[in-house]
Amino acid sequence: MNTQALLQEMPETETVSERDMANAIRALVMDSVQKANSGHPGMPMGMADVATVLFNRFIKLDPLHPQWPDRDRFVLSAGHGSTLQYALHYLIGYPDMPIEELQRFRQLGAKTAGHPEYGHAQGIEMTTGPLGQGIATAVGMALAERLLVQRFGEDIVDHHTYVIAGDGCLQEGISHEAIDLAGHLRLSKLIVFWDNNSISIDGPTSLSTSMDQLMRFEAAGFDVQEIDGHDYEEIADAIARARSSDRPSLVSCRTIIGKGAPNLQGTEKTHGAPLGDSEIAAVRQAIDWPHQPFEVPEEIIETWRDAARRGADERREWCVRMAASPHGDDLRQAVLKQLPASLFEELGAFRREHVEKATKVATRKASEMVLGVINNATDLTIGGSADLTHSNLTVTPGMRDVTPQSFSGRYIHYGIREHGMAAAMNGLALHGGFIPYGGTFLAFADYARGAMRLSALMGQQVIYVMTHDSIGLGEDGPTHQPIEHLAMLRATPGINVFRPADIIETAECWELALKYSDRPSVIVLSRQNLAMLRHAHAEENRSSRGAYVLRETAEPRAITLMATGSEVEIACTAADMLRGQYKIPAAVVSMPSWELFEAQTPAYRRSVLAAAPRIGIEAAARLGWDRWIGEKGAFIGMQGFGASAPAPDLYRHFNITPENIVATARKLIN
Amino acid sequence: MNTQALLQEMPETETVSERDMANAIRALVMDSVQKANSGHPGMPMGMADVATVLFNRFIKLDPLHPQWPDRDRFVLSAGHGSTLQYALHYLIGYPDMPIEELQRFRQLGAKTAGHPEYGHAQGIEMTTGPLGQGIATAVGMALAERLLVQRFGEDIVDHHTYVIAGDGCLQEGISHEAIDLAGHLRLSKLIVFWDNNSISIDGPTSLSTSMDQLMRFEAAGFDVQEIDGHDYEEIADAIARARSSDRPSLVSCRTIIGKGAPNLQGTEKTHGAPLGDSEIAAVRQAIDWPHQPFEVPEEIIETWRDAARRGADERREWCVRMAASPHGDDLRQAVLKQLPASLFEELGAFRREHVEKATKVATRKASEMVLGVINNATDLTIGGSADLTHSNLTVTPGMRDVTPQSFSGRYIHYGIREHGMAAAMNGLALHGGFIPYGGTFLAFADYARGAMRLSALMGQQVIYVMTHDSIGLGEDGPTHQPIEHLAMLRATPGINVFRPADIIETAECWELALKYSDRPSVIVLSRQNLAMLRHAHAEENRSSRGAYVLRETAEPRAITLMATGSEVEIACTAADMLRGQYKIPAAVVSMPSWELFEAQTPAYRRSVLAAAPRIGIEAAARLGWDRWIGEKGAFIGMQGFGASAPAPDLYRHFNITPENIVATARKLIN
Repeated sequence: MNTQALLQEMPETETVSERDMANAIRALVMDSVQKANSGHPGMPMGMADVATVLFNRFIKLDPLHPQWPDRDRFVLSAGHGSTLQYALHYLIGYPDMPIEELQRFRQLGAKTAGHPEYGHAQGIEMTTGPLGQGIATAVGMALAERLLVQRFGEDIVDHHTYVIAGDGCLQEGISHEAIDLAGHLRLSKLIVFWDNNSISIDGPTSLSTSMDQLMRFEAAGFDVQEIDGHDYEEIADAIARARSSDRPSLVSCRTIIGKGAPNLQGTEKTHGAPLGDSEIAAVRQAIDWPHQPFEVPEEIIETWRDAARRGADERREWCVRMAASPHGDDLRQAVLKQLPASLFEELGAFRREHVEKATKVATRKASEMVLGVINNATDLTIGGSADLTHSNLTVTPGMRDVTPQSFSGRYIHYGIREHGMAAAMNGLALHGGFIPYGGTFLAFADYARGAMRLSALMGQQVIYVMTHDSIGLGEDGPTHQPIEHLAMLRATPGINVFRPADIIETAECWELALKYSDRPSVIVLSRQNLAMLRHAHAEENRSSRGAYVLRETAEPRAITLMATGSEVEIACTAADMLRGQYKIPAAVVSMPSWELFEAQTPAYRRSVLAAAPRIGIEAAARLGWDRWIGEKGAFIGMQGFGASAPAPDLYRHFNITPENIVATARKLIN
Repeated sequence: MNTQALLQEMPETETVSERDMANAIRALVMDSVQKANSGHPGMPMGMADVATVLFNRFIKLDPLHPQWPDRDRFVLSAGHGSTLQYALHYLIGYPDMPIEELQRFRQLGAKTAGHPEYGHAQGIEMTTGPLGQGIATAVGMALAERLLVQRFGEDIVDHHTYVIAGDGCLQEGISHEAIDLAGHLRLSKLIVFWDNNSISIDGPTSLSTSMDQLMRFEAAGFDVQEIDGHDYEEIADAIARARSSDRPSLVSCRTIIGKGAPNLQGTEKTHGAPLGDSEIAAVRQAIDWPHQPFEVPEEIIETWRDAARRGADERREWCVRMAASPHGDDLRQAVLKQLPASLFEELGAFRREHVEKATKVATRKASEMVLGVINNATDLTIGGSADLTHSNLTVTPGMRDVTPQSFSGRYIHYGIREHGMAAAMNGLALHGGFIPYGGTFLAFADYARGAMRLSALMGQQVIYVMTHDSIGLGEDGPTHQPIEHLAMLRATPGINVFRPADIIETAECWELALKYSDRPSVIVLSRQNLAMLRHAHAEENRSSRGAYVLRETAEPRAITLMATGSEVEIACTAADMLRGQYKIPAAVVSMPSWELFEAQTPAYRRSVLAAAPRIGIEAAARLGWDRWIGEKGAFIGMQGFGASAPAPDLYRHFNITPENIVATARKLIN
């Protein structure tokens, strides 16, 4: 055989090095950002080598089956480097990521949004961009994997969660909450790559931090390593060691931001702006990349596709194991998050029982009782609290704790970490197999805001149990008394906010939270006892309309009292006084969910609001209430922050009383 | 002299031990909580010994001069232990903390609120309760001290900031941001006592954390020590060492929660509930405290008062040094935060100049220009950004950075730490001597929520510069595009939210933010360029009314277009089109601040709103707008989250356009 023939026999792909593969990323990144005239080339070019080794040698993904439950999760916590993910997806062959999408980077309707957006393109495991969310959400994903292994066996559940995090992710407070939880639970299949490039937007990170990150992660219980992030074998060795560790891993990758850009690399100038035509030309020369923009030689693409082929093989083997596993069906059902129909029947029976008993309990207590029904009927729910278990009442009989030693429980002590809890719940929901719920005080929704917004943006079914929902919590005072929090949550798109008025509405709202599988719910609950307000059991879930007439009048209404949660009982008392003392027919409207009421037909909304003057009553800020009370209505609620005192004193002090409602109603009518 | 006479000669106080002093705290704490039937005895009883040594031997306070600028700052970060602070205040003799106040713990109007509330009682340096805020705010206080030392000299500025933090404070993410910043800046006079009692609300901290806190603080650059928190000499030695360290200090105090309660100590049962009568009786026996509730023997009180006497002496010496210092007057002026009158004249001139030039810039750029004027005219302002300096445009020419080596600058690189920044700014403001401002993107107000709420609750003049305030930021996409954030901030009591429409309003809003010294301001600014909209210069600060008629009509109004910020220009274009194409007289109302508009007389508000139908236009959530547009009005804004694309495409996509305003106006009129 002559040389020519011999060369033809040798597959060309063998001549493609990981350096070539990484340079393909670099070229695609800089070209995408340049074409968009907007974006962040620095991180992707700096981390191209790490990503290449990870994807080329280790990661388990099948681009043709992006929802494969046992795939590795890849989270780009440093979401501004989105072109790294898009380039990877193009190169390994996700069908929905042709080169045209890279050319449409950051344009309206493109899959290639400025930051990775969950649901825009296959294989994007979560929305990132707000720093630190990725690493914290990944903790939930890695936890989900451990929980599913315990339930269904390592033969059908066995995957890693890989994270690329930047300096920003590690500076954000949420990273502390996340790594403490991950280290505590020894989530050994969580592997975090830190793009340790010593540059942030303002300049060198030494402008603002002197943190010894390795020591810090070690303190949290991580296995830590530091490597040259441009040395392929060091990268590979580090990943291999991290995969074999019995602890979560941090791999500090010393990198050069914008690596490949001869005049700009190593500086913040590569972080958040296109390199510009002349520097791009210089890159092409420096990395020996003579190809046209968006052009990658076929043999390099072919080599990249080997990673996908390896993933496809692994998936086929997994399918065989699934068929053989006694738990295959269970895993399938868990991933589909199918709730048993019987659960909803039991919730109906629960409502009937407590209408008959006229049960008077705090709605947080009602929630605990409802959760007892739910947690008995399904394993999908994973409970927890940010160290307020016996205040939020989120644990139900028989629930065991998740501990570092055992993942057979289903109750998580998230610690005093509201933000980390919310992000971990996002991760549990995104991973699949679970409907997470978790508790804190409503006022501390503040601490969880960043992750709660992502629940909404990603449309994840995460259920927030937020108790102590007003001045009704009493003595803890203004720091603990929410005022603006209902408005904050109601203004956030894509969240169902529920504020039930009694045990019946609490059951209804929980039912709705379970049924709305495409969005988060916030269930806002009282510390104080509240009377049962229904006159009779109805099959219908009346809360599903968002608002409804709880007390209608015999004669035409003279006034409509609209309230939520604990203030509905006060409105009912006022209505009784108006009728009894002044012969004024006052209707009472309960509004457990503004979002669901907004979604009703205008005719229904009109029938509830009616023509009489309206008073809105809520122990919270007025903002938003004018939508319901109209220009001639009145609002009775909070004008400022709360105070520390027993709850009844506070209601009197802030004039949220039946007497004030009666006086206001009489004024409005006259 | 006989024995009897000898004993009489010996001052009784010498026989009082620190154990007696600490037990006085324990007794007052348990009695206060028991009487209120609500509260948290565990932490104060556990930390009574540490607090005793700190106050007895070290702290520099003069209860008769609680505002003394050179006092030590004492921050009870674990604010639920408020009775510790109240007991200390009673014992060392703050005049406004008689025993009756302890007997009124947690009652309406008492100074002894459930958590320490700034402004309720003298000597409470800040409001605590939301965990982690104390330690993070203390970083700002310690930073303020360093900055003032640099400006005015160590002879008149030389004090420590002491913090008592619990497990919760250290688990919260904000603590990470805080200690990284403190360690980086080597704030050596910050001393944190960690109440290391291994108990949180849910039970042992081992339920949720395995963090090696000493290693973690060491990684952040702290000097760390661990001591027996019940050994008086170990405590004293640790404080002495911490005071001599050139780094901030963590003293891990191993304590027993509820120490002194023989049957409950060491368990979570002492954390958040009264001990109960029988356990209280057992405590009295165990610690040999035979006195009645709220009764402390005179000699123990007298011994406690020595601390106050030491402080009074130190203050007198300080007064002497102040009189001798060339910088005494400067310090006095700084503490009063007196802005020069010339500053406001210059801001007026700035407005006149840019009306004449019709300067078209992004309002973030306008803010930078205004800040140039402000920072030239006063040294009180301390600037910074959470690593978005050149996006927020918060640095002005000549401003030097604050660095670990030098505190002579006045620009702080807060790092990627929005929450830590907000808390540090609270600390700078509370300490006195500074008006801090700091920047991030408006969407990341989410991350800073906890501390921003405290700015409002404490009435601190902290100025938040929040740029990239809508979909107008373009390509970064929905994670970076605020939707609900204006509503969230407007719903929060005690904040002025400003969204200026052009360079003139930006100058006006900055002027207002400087003048409202009793509350925080949020100045919300555009990324994109905006036209100057005023027809002529006016001396009056028109934004001071909150909303005003920017474009009046010659004929009676057919419609009123109400908008804020970048949407005012769009409304003006629509008004021109309505007049030009349809002869419809449309007025335009600019609403830079809803809070200030709400504070105007009803007559003024009516004159602005007028009788014609109204359209609200804001690239944000609708929530709150119904207050202004009424039942027959319309709203043009965002219905859900944003998207990633160039800004002009997004405005068209979301239909926030002059054309849509025109069409909506015509529909409303017909």
